[in-house]
Amino acid sequence: MSLILALDFGGTKLAAATVKAGSREWLRHDSRLSPAKADALSDIAIMRSLIDSVLNGSKPDAIGVSFGGPVDAATGTVRLSHHVPGWENIPLQQLLQEDYNAPAIVDNDANVAAIGEHRFGAGQGYDSLFYITISTGVGGGWILNNQPWSGASGMAGEIGHMVVDPTGPVCLCGKRGCVERLASGPYIAQNARELLAVQTPHHTDGQVRGDILRYLVGDDLNLITGQIVSAAAAYGDELAQEVLYKAAWALGVGIGNVANLMNPQRFVLGGGVTKAGDTFWSIVRKVARETALPEVNFEVVRALLGDDAPLWGAVAMGLNILD
Amino acid sequence: MSLILALDFGGTKLAAATVKAGSREWLRHDSRLSPAKADALSDIAIMRSLIDSVLNGSKPDAIGVSFGGPVDAATGTVRLSHHVPGWENIPLQQLLQEDYNAPAIVDNDANVAAIGEHRFGAGQGYDSLFYITISTGVGGGWILNNQPWSGASGMAGEIGHMVVDPTGPVCLCGKRGCVERLASGPYIAQNARELLAVQTPHHTDGQVRGDILRYLVGDDLNLITGQIVSAAAAYGDELAQEVLYKAAWALGVGIGNVANLMNPQRFVLGGGVTKAGDTFWSIVRKVARETALPEVNFEVVRALLGDDAPLWGAVAMGLNILD
Repeated sequence: MSLILALDFGGTKLAAATVKAGSREWLRHDSRLSPAKADALSDIAIMRSLIDSVLNGSKPDAIGVSFGGPVDAATGTVRLSHHVPGWENIPLQQLLQEDYNAPAIVDNDANVAAIGEHRFGAGQGYDSLFYITISTGVGGGWILNNQPWSGASGMAGEIGHMVVDPTGPVCLCGKRGCVERLASGPYIAQNARELLAVQTPHHTDGQVRGDILRYLVGDDLNLITGQIVSAAAAYGDELAQEVLYKAAWALGVGIGNVANLMNPQRFVLGGGVTKAGDTFWSIVRKVARETALPEVNFEVVRALLGDDAPLWGAVAMGLNILD
Repeated sequence: MSLILALDFGGTKLAAATVKAGSREWLRHDSRLSPAKADALSDIAIMRSLIDSVLNGSKPDAIGVSFGGPVDAATGTVRLSHHVPGWENIPLQQLLQEDYNAPAIVDNDANVAAIGEHRFGAGQGYDSLFYITISTGVGGGWILNNQPWSGASGMAGEIGHMVVDPTGPVCLCGKRGCVERLASGPYIAQNARELLAVQTPHHTDGQVRGDILRYLVGDDLNLITGQIVSAAAAYGDELAQEVLYKAAWALGVGIGNVANLMNPQRFVLGGGVTKAGDTFWSIVRKVARETALPEVNFEVVRALLGDDAPLWGAVAMGLNILD
């Protein structure tokens, strides 16, 4: 029985796991947070110790790797990491092949998570899907004709920087009103902070927009996160609800536009922001449906593999090497 | 040498042609405008006579068909035509196979034109491209991994109804600021008419915005077409230039968004509106470049096959049947 080694170089977490071909349970699984001052070399050193731990003396038959940043998938060379310095042009596939004497394949995390959800999660049995992660950033990965599509130079899937509101706030990328600028966790938090900053607190006769949100962070607006905005919205805070509505709206417009353009069967959504609750989901679905042409059909469903989607995608890639 | 029969059921024109496998020149080519009160039956009757004319007694080995409307490509059944009544659920592939005793394949015109440009035109040698026609409507067709991608239900490519300006004018589809609403020929004409309607003509001291456009249609605004707006813009009419700028901007935003999402090597643009001149093209390219992420590379080039792109795509589909 072949042994697959699956690796996930995330922006904040490193994980390694082994699985026997055909199994749907980890043989061994180990992970560690990336230290605050991580660089490529420290990440690689941590990953080596995780690999030693999960291999436990055995030899892998194939290695699948998810990397949190753009990768030249043809050669398995990392282009760069937006989170960890020093990754520019590191030939990760080649390094791993030489060190562990097994074929390796490397792709970026959104593409790999799409592969994972397709083979083991919410995309099983579907020929075409678009996986979207809405988390620190917003990214996507394609399955078309049962195959991953990562673009001519590995850059496909960037729904995060689709402009949905040309008059909206300026994104880090320089454009206004990108999906990511409205729907990522950190930007949801920032948008709530900015609205609160121009809102007078008011505690006399009943609640005012933003009061619940202020309360949850003890009036220290720097503590606001996307998750806390979701919680405040669930408790009925109208300011938090407005911010989340805009996030869901942006995502819905993006999904509807993508449906018109590519007509996949399913949209599979994962990442922390998708835990924002049923109201968030129903707005996403409603706006997506309104944005798409009436004759374009699709479903918008939750990812099933959670944080392990990239690792399971890495398993699928490893299995593909062996086939 | 195999004989391919290529058919193009356009919204306003019907065309048939024959070509020997391997040749890049038509053996015979015949076309006819669709009559004003055409329906599916009259179109089919006209096409039969065109087919008789180009076959000239010989028997085709394969039939490729481009249809101007949504098609269920798996069965070759037409869903409907937006221009000609009576096409609902007509099993065109089956009809042709029975009548001419040869295998047939049917797809919608944008997909077929993409196939044509890929095999014989501006997409030769490229693995991935998005073909966009900007004409009476705005539609697109995909080539990914050297294969057409028409979507889970044949609806992929609808860049025309991507929203690029949520505060823009209302489109026939019900949304605001779609690419088609700003960039199609008829809408360019309508936008110019609407701007002229609120503009006071002024003929005393030199030219005023819109004067050239008015002059070109003898002050009868109903005669304005997209082509005439282009001509007025080329002569320096600032109102016409503004309308064309908005069209090129919309197309550029759409292309940039698509580049981020799918990362194809080339965008191949055809259709009457692309004849609007170099200023139009340079705005499209500039806005597309600004909209796409810096690391996403692509080219925006002219289609090479003109009005014959669907027919040449039909030839390619016919050749694929024989392979």
